[in-house]
Amino acid sequence: MSAPSAPAAAAPAISLNEAQQQTYDLITRNLQEVLGEDIIKSKLAKDEVVSCYWGTATTGRPHIGYFVPLTKIADFLKAGVQVKILLAEIHAFLDAGKATFETVAFRVAYYSKLLHAVFTSLGVPTDKLSFITGSDYQLSKEYSLDNFRLASITSLHDASKAGAEVVKQSDSPFLSSLLYPGMQALDEQYLGVDFQFGGVDQRKIFTMAQDCLPRLGYAKRAHLMNPMVPGLAGGKMSSSDPNSKIDFLDSAADVKKKIKAAFCEEKNITDNGILSFHKAVLFPLQTMRIAQLVERGEDPSSAENRNKLFISPNAPEGTLVTIVRDDRFGGPVHYQTFQQIEDDFASGALHPGDLKKITTEMINDLLEPVRKTFSEDQAFQDAERSAYPPPPPPQKFVKKSKQEKKAEKAKEKPASGPDAEKFIEQQKDAIATTEADKPDATHAIMSDKA
Amino acid sequence: MSAPSAPAAAAPAISLNEAQQQTYDLITRNLQEVLGEDIIKSKLAKDEVVSCYWGTATTGRPHIGYFVPLTKIADFLKAGVQVKILLAEIHAFLDAGKATFETVAFRVAYYSKLLHAVFTSLGVPTDKLSFITGSDYQLSKEYSLDNFRLASITSLHDASKAGAEVVKQSDSPFLSSLLYPGMQALDEQYLGVDFQFGGVDQRKIFTMAQDCLPRLGYAKRAHLMNPMVPGLAGGKMSSSDPNSKIDFLDSAADVKKKIKAAFCEEKNITDNGILSFHKAVLFPLQTMRIAQLVERGEDPSSAENRNKLFISPNAPEGTLVTIVRDDRFGGPVHYQTFQQIEDDFASGALHPGDLKKITTEMINDLLEPVRKTFSEDQAFQDAERSAYPPPPPPQKFVKKSKQEKKAEKAKEKPASGPDAEKFIEQQKDAIATTEADKPDATHAIMSDKA
Repeated sequence: MSAPSAPAAAAPAISLNEAQQQTYDLITRNLQEVLGEDIIKSKLAKDEVVSCYWGTATTGRPHIGYFVPLTKIADFLKAGVQVKILLAEIHAFLDAGKATFETVAFRVAYYSKLLHAVFTSLGVPTDKLSFITGSDYQLSKEYSLDNFRLASITSLHDASKAGAEVVKQSDSPFLSSLLYPGMQALDEQYLGVDFQFGGVDQRKIFTMAQDCLPRLGYAKRAHLMNPMVPGLAGGKMSSSDPNSKIDFLDSAADVKKKIKAAFCEEKNITDNGILSFHKAVLFPLQTMRIAQLVERGEDPSSAENRNKLFISPNAPEGTLVTIVRDDRFGGPVHYQTFQQIEDDFASGALHPGDLKKITTEMINDLLEPVRKTFSEDQAFQDAERSAYPPPPPPQKFVKKSKQEKKAEKAKEKPASGPDAEKFIEQQKDAIATTEADKPDATHAIMSDKA
Repeated sequence: MSAPSAPAAAAPAISLNEAQQQTYDLITRNLQEVLGEDIIKSKLAKDEVVSCYWGTATTGRPHIGYFVPLTKIADFLKAGVQVKILLAEIHAFLDAGKATFETVAFRVAYYSKLLHAVFTSLGVPTDKLSFITGSDYQLSKEYSLDNFRLASITSLHDASKAGAEVVKQSDSPFLSSLLYPGMQALDEQYLGVDFQFGGVDQRKIFTMAQDCLPRLGYAKRAHLMNPMVPGLAGGKMSSSDPNSKIDFLDSAADVKKKIKAAFCEEKNITDNGILSFHKAVLFPLQTMRIAQLVERGEDPSSAENRNKLFISPNAPEGTLVTIVRDDRFGGPVHYQTFQQIEDDFASGALHPGDLKKITTEMINDLLEPVRKTFSEDQAFQDAERSAYPPPPPPQKFVKKSKQEKKAEKAKEKPASGPDAEKFIEQQKDAIATTEADKPDATHAIMSDKA
């Protein structure tokens, strides 16, 4: 019965069968927030492949905080989502002052090498994973025109607000930092994805994207947000704070030293970067690894596999990690959930020293294959050297002649014109090298026609 | 003799021979300001071709105020300068709210047709003149990358300041209007010119360009500025104020009516758009026309030619214009300089009615060949219709059903995606049509590789 003035009925909830619902739950588990879930569900209901992108601006050295999104991306891949990883070197440049175009170009090659190595070490299926760089399409005519169209509907106020938590802030920001958030919206269209994934710090950019794309005549995308995970030293994990980060290429000894120095106060579970890392990374990865063994037809309870997984041979069924202690400190303790480890830490039953010890071992176990790949791959090493050249050695003070000073000053100027074409070629080469190295070539590079 | 601590000597003045100096004087006469004269002089000193660009954003209908820059451009052409006219349709779009991309694309074709017709009617040599549209190169990879580089060194403050007199102002401007000034700087590089020409209202954009280009590793360009000429109704001539403008296609009767209505107070020479038009346009054009006759080997003093030039057959040598009056109002009066006409007007010896009469005749004489070209050129007429469609006829109020209202609302939305590629193709077609029409094909279109 519908009276003429009755309001339109709300769209019926999208109903998923059991398998589809399981896929949806896997895609969205452990997230802090999902915007636009129906966009994903409507695809799943038709058994269509869902696609997403995660972008990372190639600024500082990636640190092990990257395990947080990568762990979630492993969920997406496991759920059959087609994942595009955007190495956003143009965004890196736009976020004022963080790097020059020349530097970010080198970093693209390093990020690409590194992320490939990490995914491979995690044993995640990468056939639905592709790497794209910003310059693959953000310099195209179509994108440039859309960028102008977007700029014509984006006020200074909206752009500043959107970038507030992500882009370097200032009273009189550079225009580049104002362009940054909108381009993240356009990327959703140009990468042709159903959702964008990121930390919850991206929320204002994501809601701006949801507002803008339909105004340009494009489809609104869903947005999936990870909680923010504090760094080992507490606070947001940042590549610019050396105390809060462990580099993917740190030696085992360095990892041990950094974790030893991390803030991890007895019984304090609210400001504890190490516990957070267990929750966001180590526990989900343990679950994933066990599932991988089962898929390969192996017995995850065999002594050999349990040893690899940091689980005692005699641990009860369902254990995800065993913390080995001297009997005088309570003996080994087996955890099946993160909640249990957190509860024990809160009560004081688990001591910071024991937590740090297992954390060091597990992180080094994750990093060992990455370090090995690096040590065996000359191109990887070259990329690292060019992307992050060592600082020049400190110089002794020598009194310089006026002529010497003048010559140095001349060198400081931008040596020559920008040579944009050279940059573009260089970018192509960087990726081509990375791709050519991969015998299985599963990581297709998208063309301009994305 | 040079002591070690002596300051570097100032660069020696560039010395020009007589012909070079004459060329320089012709290039710079009647301007309000020249920045970077040495850039031009150093080219002239080597007898190299000087090049420049003048950009016009294809927003409203061009009005006869355009005769002001075009008269100066005639000087440049006469001086052998290679002149590029940028039909800046992307700038038109960026200057928020003035037009959609679809509309500005049509306007490019109209501007191109019209400006060709005007130059032809003025008889100026156009072999060193070329037309370029913004989308010919402003969407290229190289330009996009440079636009990002420029955005990364341009603060919000600097961009706002530069655009203050040109771009629509607001407390929270659209990002597009902030990008506008910088792109005008980049255009100098991408058009490969020695100087940019514009009204003195462009001064802040010009000084920004002088600051920015060297910071991107590009050469600083010179800037030549025309004085601002008030509209016929007084104030800056604007295409958005119908009272201040005479359209290039206005009928002779419309011109007469508009000039009759123009503010032209007896003895008032400080706020007098008609006198200003004589100074900036009509007198320089008279001089040019006489010179053209001499060049063609004709006698400018022949009765026929004097008749065409609004000069009485019995006027003294050197007369540029004769104002014909009844003997009871003082009889005909002959002017050799603009100063004389201004002095007579100031003293009351020349009456507004007589000034308006000769102005009407001279403007109609300038417009007649443009009107004729328009009436004989179907493509010109089509371009005009698409660029400036007539407003829809006023509708009677009819009560609408809810369904009708809903259907209308749906139509208001941007009908579909932007189809940037379509826009780009459309632009190519618009220009191709204009070019193909020209039998002499003197107006080359620049390629992307500008």
